[in-house]
Amino acid sequence: MTIKWGILGCGHIALQFLRGIQPSNKGIAAACAARNFEKAKAFAKTHNIDRAYESYEALASTPEIDAIYVANTHNAHFETVKLCLNAGKHVLCEKPLTVNANQTKVLIELASKNNVLLMEAVWTRFLPAIRSLQSAIQEGLIGEVVTVKADFSLNRELPTTHRLRNPELAGGALLDLGIYPITIASIVFQNAPHSIYAQCVLDDETGVDQRGFYTIDFGQGKTALLTSGYTQAAPCEAVISGTKGHIIVPHFLGAKSYQVCVQGEAPQVIDLPFDEGHEFCAEIEHFHDCLENGLTQSPILPLNKTLEMMQTMDEIRRQWGLKYSEELEQATAVSH
Amino acid sequence: MTIKWGILGCGHIALQFLRGIQPSNKGIAAACAARNFEKAKAFAKTHNIDRAYESYEALASTPEIDAIYVANTHNAHFETVKLCLNAGKHVLCEKPLTVNANQTKVLIELASKNNVLLMEAVWTRFLPAIRSLQSAIQEGLIGEVVTVKADFSLNRELPTTHRLRNPELAGGALLDLGIYPITIASIVFQNAPHSIYAQCVLDDETGVDQRGFYTIDFGQGKTALLTSGYTQAAPCEAVISGTKGHIIVPHFLGAKSYQVCVQGEAPQVIDLPFDEGHEFCAEIEHFHDCLENGLTQSPILPLNKTLEMMQTMDEIRRQWGLKYSEELEQATAVSH
Repeated sequence: MTIKWGILGCGHIALQFLRGIQPSNKGIAAACAARNFEKAKAFAKTHNIDRAYESYEALASTPEIDAIYVANTHNAHFETVKLCLNAGKHVLCEKPLTVNANQTKVLIELASKNNVLLMEAVWTRFLPAIRSLQSAIQEGLIGEVVTVKADFSLNRELPTTHRLRNPELAGGALLDLGIYPITIASIVFQNAPHSIYAQCVLDDETGVDQRGFYTIDFGQGKTALLTSGYTQAAPCEAVISGTKGHIIVPHFLGAKSYQVCVQGEAPQVIDLPFDEGHEFCAEIEHFHDCLENGLTQSPILPLNKTLEMMQTMDEIRRQWGLKYSEELEQATAVSH
Repeated sequence: MTIKWGILGCGHIALQFLRGIQPSNKGIAAACAARNFEKAKAFAKTHNIDRAYESYEALASTPEIDAIYVANTHNAHFETVKLCLNAGKHVLCEKPLTVNANQTKVLIELASKNNVLLMEAVWTRFLPAIRSLQSAIQEGLIGEVVTVKADFSLNRELPTTHRLRNPELAGGALLDLGIYPITIASIVFQNAPHSIYAQCVLDDETGVDQRGFYTIDFGQGKTALLTSGYTQAAPCEAVISGTKGHIIVPHFLGAKSYQVCVQGEAPQVIDLPFDEGHEFCAEIEHFHDCLENGLTQSPILPLNKTLEMMQTMDEIRRQWGLKYSEELEQATAVSH
């Protein structure tokens, strides 16, 4: 079985996907589409992709395509994924799956109705180092885990039109960067949050969250202290504290290793690297495996987990008073 | 001018003080006292201290003594420091100065009334590495500082009678350990907190805070995310994030160095070490300098800063619902 992929959106992240698919003998990139047809054609030519389409609709309705990788900006994910699911395609969609939880619920229903595989492309969850970390924690390596701290911040001079700053693109640090600290907390603690306390600093010019802090109580004394922002320089790491030791995960979103410090023992580094440019291999392989096994949900990232993550981000935005335009927040399945 | 010290309390911390005083040519340990007279005599004998007293009262009323280092457990600081101030002695008192802010206010008044120097022995504030760090931050080395994260946690099997777990000794992680993360945030941001959000996990057996989390908003988007506890293993470090770079301070409470990462430049380590056992030298030298200059408050740690720290810890305990016994919380200047 060769899975024929359509790539929707031909930007930087689509290129990453293409590099991720290359080592797989199960999938091939068979078509691509972009709102800018010239861009799609150039992308297809450069990467030896058979067909380029000038509309997402055309790509979605191509019978030869089995699955679509949704790689446009997340403000458009809801409508785009709906389109693909309604066309009966399996969908791997970049994170965040949608702008809010209500939209995610609609897509979950739609995927179920069409009996296709839908998965959010949160690459972190599929990485060998993270899978190993999760097992080690479950086996009690550092005792009972009580705290997760993580930060994913950037510090760049960005124009107000940049994706991260632009409210029309559902910008802000939370949906784009903050999803990673929340993900690592979710990977470690697994259960849904009990309560959340969130603070943020809004962008003077555009009104989205330029940086935010969220303390998530996972119950039974388990707490995550998380941060992200695009105007602060900070080490990108996760620190997981337990009753017997702690674990440090450098660049946790794309983890290649983790350091275990069990009390009374020498610190130990667990290396599970991957080649440069192959960041997405693990998630793509997993998607292929799910398809081969006839699954409509990933056992590693099931849709209720994606929904839980969106609900967490909804609650954080609610506390901040950060709402996007009605058009972006709407969640009706109009193109049903 | 030789400053003659009385040491009040002859435990582990008094020994640290003694080691700290030794390199100074300005002060000598002239007497000591402990509730257990045998302990005081043994301490005096071992360390060549002229006199040992069997009561704090006897020590405080000794005319030969200029200053007293208060080194008993913090539940007793309020009454003990009152005693010493009323005897007209200068006082260097271990942290925390008292159990709550109302007690601190009484001591501030009493020190002023008696025209003596009163200082809380928060050694961190006087360390060369921390003084250098503070200057570097003020000079804008990492731009505008926006976040401080710090954790001071222990993970030891402690009996319920241990100081840290015992409510009768005003136990709990906050007053003993948490004061350090709050201190580093205060050193970096300098102004008083605008608002505080605190969570904790109480000790099942004794009811004090076994671990706590506090997010302190210092205004203008400046936030400290702090933790401490005695049942979790965690790296003891402070991470200071700015708009141009970040600083990592390993073992920040007793900092000997700090690492500066300015964006676009190679990381740089600033070393300002001190010899093992000489942790308290800097604070003692500073106290001597204050006395020589006729000061009744430290310019590095003035009493309103000590009061602000106690108010912060009061607010955190209020949010947790953690109150000590009336006897411990009382703040009347009865021995006036």
